[in-house]
Amino acid sequence: MTGLAQRIAFVEEIDRLKGVLRRTRLINEERKENTAEHSWHVAMMALALAPDAPQGVNIDRAVQMLLVHDIVEIDVGDTFAYDEAGHREKPAKEARAARRIFGLLPRSEGEHYIDLWKEYEAAETPDGAFAHSVDRFLPILHNYRTDGHAWREHGIRRSQVLKRNAVIERGCPSLWPLVLQIVDDAVAHGMLIDG
Amino acid sequence: MTGLAQRIAFVEEIDRLKGVLRRTRLINEERKENTAEHSWHVAMMALALAPDAPQGVNIDRAVQMLLVHDIVEIDVGDTFAYDEAGHREKPAKEARAARRIFGLLPRSEGEHYIDLWKEYEAAETPDGAFAHSVDRFLPILHNYRTDGHAWREHGIRRSQVLKRNAVIERGCPSLWPLVLQIVDDAVAHGMLIDG
Repeated sequence: MTGLAQRIAFVEEIDRLKGVLRRTRLINEERKENTAEHSWHVAMMALALAPDAPQGVNIDRAVQMLLVHDIVEIDVGDTFAYDEAGHREKPAKEARAARRIFGLLPRSEGEHYIDLWKEYEAAETPDGAFAHSVDRFLPILHNYRTDGHAWREHGIRRSQVLKRNAVIERGCPSLWPLVLQIVDDAVAHGMLIDG
Repeated sequence: MTGLAQRIAFVEEIDRLKGVLRRTRLINEERKENTAEHSWHVAMMALALAPDAPQGVNIDRAVQMLLVHDIVEIDVGDTFAYDEAGHREKPAKEARAARRIFGLLPRSEGEHYIDLWKEYEAAETPDGAFAHSVDRFLPILHNYRTDGHAWREHGIRRSQVLKRNAVIERGCPSLWPLVLQIVDDAVAHGMLIDG
């Protein structure tokens, strides 16, 4: 197979991400969102928030990370943010998925995307921590705008939200006051359990 | 409103792109795709096809263009590729939509995205022509992989596909032989009308 043919096979395969459902609902509450449209939304959000990113963050690299960050869900599905058992098994399953899916590409290109995905997952570099922060912030916004839909459904507590999303404080500090404000208001309106 | 508050309002507004339906179906034929998930797919495709892009194309700019290229559809909906009357009215309607939606952002940022969108629409610069080519190629691939679904439904002819997608020959020449090969095969299998 030529390099181009391998890339086209990869592009066809990732169409399946449009069939992976998340717990988060669209802001108009019509239905759950899928991971492909979420990936667009979060990549676009990273671009729009460029002026709020910490100095030194390469926005284009963050956008690239967000475009690929959930492709592994084609094989493993979405793991709900507050599913602790699910998160323990996640890394090994996702690593297998990354090898299979990015392995459809010519070797050096597939390895490049696996590295980018690992950098996103680790959230340690400035680009990785910023991308991760944007991905964590967007479901907070969706839950807040849908009267706490997924939070209420799963009985989520304020402390869980703050712990789960702590990366935002270092990955995109300018968003953190807004997170605290949203969480306070969500508790006040019964969308989140206090404590 | 602070700049951050304006950016967040923009991010919330564009969630509506997930509700805009296209004529193209998912490759598994389950349903029509929406414009938000298409925007992710096509941005990811531009990234994956970087090695096939003409020299001098800035892939990150092309990706940015593809992330924003269909946001105007929130107000005007998708215009089917072969709807000639629809395409005559499209520019004025889309320009209004761009001013409203990107106008939610701080002024200089909104203007930046409108310029990026116009460059995409014009398809004259190397980045704009490459982004446009990738956007034109992806529905060809979807139609081909769904047994010519939208082509058959609308009785599309080979010459219409070649005319509509001529930009690919200059915007991403390495894809053009594949376009010709797909179109020939589609005619041979009755997905497209010859002539």
